[in-house]
Amino acid sequence: MASTPAEIAEKAIALHRKYRGKLSIESRMPLNTNEDLALAYTPGVGHVSSAVAANPDLAYELTGRGRTVAVVSDGSAVLGLGNLGALGAMPVMEGKCVLFKELGGVDAVPICLDTQDADEIVMIVKNLAPSFGGINLEDISAPRCFDIEERLQDIGIPVFHDDQHGTAIVTMAAVTNALRVVGKSIDQVKVVFSGAGAAGIACAKMLMKAGVSDMILLDSKGAIYDGRGDLTHAKRDIAKVTNREGVSGDIHTAIEGADVFVGLSGPDLMNRDDVKRMAENAVVLAMANPTPEILPDEAKAGGAVVIGTGRSDFPNQVNNVLAFPGVFKGAMESRAPRVTAEMQLSAALALANLVGTPGVENILPAALDKTVAPAIAAAVSKAYAEFGAK
Amino acid sequence: MASTPAEIAEKAIALHRKYRGKLSIESRMPLNTNEDLALAYTPGVGHVSSAVAANPDLAYELTGRGRTVAVVSDGSAVLGLGNLGALGAMPVMEGKCVLFKELGGVDAVPICLDTQDADEIVMIVKNLAPSFGGINLEDISAPRCFDIEERLQDIGIPVFHDDQHGTAIVTMAAVTNALRVVGKSIDQVKVVFSGAGAAGIACAKMLMKAGVSDMILLDSKGAIYDGRGDLTHAKRDIAKVTNREGVSGDIHTAIEGADVFVGLSGPDLMNRDDVKRMAENAVVLAMANPTPEILPDEAKAGGAVVIGTGRSDFPNQVNNVLAFPGVFKGAMESRAPRVTAEMQLSAALALANLVGTPGVENILPAALDKTVAPAIAAAVSKAYAEFGAK
Repeated sequence: MASTPAEIAEKAIALHRKYRGKLSIESRMPLNTNEDLALAYTPGVGHVSSAVAANPDLAYELTGRGRTVAVVSDGSAVLGLGNLGALGAMPVMEGKCVLFKELGGVDAVPICLDTQDADEIVMIVKNLAPSFGGINLEDISAPRCFDIEERLQDIGIPVFHDDQHGTAIVTMAAVTNALRVVGKSIDQVKVVFSGAGAAGIACAKMLMKAGVSDMILLDSKGAIYDGRGDLTHAKRDIAKVTNREGVSGDIHTAIEGADVFVGLSGPDLMNRDDVKRMAENAVVLAMANPTPEILPDEAKAGGAVVIGTGRSDFPNQVNNVLAFPGVFKGAMESRAPRVTAEMQLSAALALANLVGTPGVENILPAALDKTVAPAIAAAVSKAYAEFGAK
Repeated sequence: MASTPAEIAEKAIALHRKYRGKLSIESRMPLNTNEDLALAYTPGVGHVSSAVAANPDLAYELTGRGRTVAVVSDGSAVLGLGNLGALGAMPVMEGKCVLFKELGGVDAVPICLDTQDADEIVMIVKNLAPSFGGINLEDISAPRCFDIEERLQDIGIPVFHDDQHGTAIVTMAAVTNALRVVGKSIDQVKVVFSGAGAAGIACAKMLMKAGVSDMILLDSKGAIYDGRGDLTHAKRDIAKVTNREGVSGDIHTAIEGADVFVGLSGPDLMNRDDVKRMAENAVVLAMANPTPEILPDEAKAGGAVVIGTGRSDFPNQVNNVLAFPGVFKGAMESRAPRVTAEMQLSAALALANLVGTPGVENILPAALDKTVAPAIAAAVSKAYAEFGAK
């Protein structure tokens, strides 16, 4: 992994060209004889169709519906690259589908939509639902993503915006283990967030659900406080329950005394002096990609003890890959109609608990650790069994 | 294949339950190391996405778009079973996808829509287009299927309603070789169609394009003639160019002197006496499933020389399976934006020509003959190169 960005770009494009996309759709049934044909297709399949039409639940037993996810994007917020449109989103969505299968054993289909209209996206996803057991929304820009996801919560299958909740689950697990390392209790810490987009707000909500009560979120204009004039609907809501002292100003002010910094914003936001103003034994999760809000060496120089980023070439990679395959595996296996906040928090704690003894450079499992998805799936199923899906 | 319908039903359901659906989505790329992850997913995939966004044509080289078809149905006309809805259609669409892959090497995704509104279906398919290199419409009832298909002809990728054109291609090939067997010329024969739904009208049009000038179509109310009061738009159009003598009445009247009977309607329509009223060396293609318009023995007793059905347990099975994998393979490999009537007729003639010496019980290749799709694909590509896609 000593490759430069230019080398990675070249290799990635060459590899994609070689395979011409990353997915293959294969038959699970033999098709060698006329009898095979008569069973997989007409006339045999007609009986299967009639059976499913008479009892829709049978779709989970006689078709792939219950083990197949649609990874749906409108290409409006592709990785950190912005609005690349549907075709530009395809390589990323294919990549998600690869991870679904390789890590969670979940079949996944990339669906990139040629519309960025929320009403149209909602209508399309509703109508795609019979073919899938779950919908992973991906790389849809805020604030539309909130509205779209919310309007799809009652379609009978889990609809989960990974940029929000996947990030929140893995961040929550990282914070949990980082606090174990520094010996602080989650209900005692001050957390400062840079980034109040879809991911930032979802992370903030989950940390609050887990017990954090002292929290400030910042967007590109500075700290978010109740009454700030330029807030979107989602930010207004979060302003009501965070920043209890009404701090205004930029990160250099807000960071004062923070135990945990969570960055989901952009590169080079702060330096060692900001970290020095944090509380002792500070935790810094600087997850902007590819360039973090502060580089690990700089954070260390400021006194941070546990440092994570979104990158695989530093310790403690906070990567959504750890969450979504297991979340869908669990939700679909248990046939939960939604992925609730309860299930998400259970997933986060299960993920944290997979690390036997958390250490300064060991707060999360490795991205490709194949024990992760089954453990998360079990936690999600258990939460559904215990708390239902309301 | 001596199984009874009840045995086939039981076996088909057991097999579908065993495999839990017929498709599996697999990764084509390795995912074992962090470097694999960095290339298939972030950060490498970001470079691929940027490249595709800057040059949309690259989607055909760097993603699976160009080799993946969506098999889209609204479940309104599933096989001969009627309106089973989206879930009821799923087993059939999965079956089509198996055939696409096994016979044509084309990756295919079943998409069953929870709407039967033509405007909504058109809107959804347009917006799904960036993820696919072609759209196979399937089991959508007439007359909506005509409208839907027509409105999707300009979305830049082939949109092909298999019930219409797949059936037409294979029927055309069957008629071509049947006429070779009986030594009649296509521009001299009288053809009578029972069934003026989507498939019947498409077949009629292709036979006319190939030279048939004397043709009568019948629907459930009898012969279709110009001026009949109760005709749909599509039937009115076909009435203007068929049945030049304005015959009215039922099949027993219309069949008089016919050289070829094509049945795409329902069971037990006629008997040996009707066949006796046909011209000498009659051709009978009775394709209603599972029970043909007339059983082969009965047609033979009436004097028919070449007899085909839709079933695999009689000789001369006229099965769409012979057409659609090759049609899409060819259209997608040559990047044709449409599948024109010219390409379809070329496909039909290529299919007919695969049978070296047609015989009474040998007018079409076997359903699982793996040489078929490549030959049809080549014919479609050639027709596109010669005639374009207008």
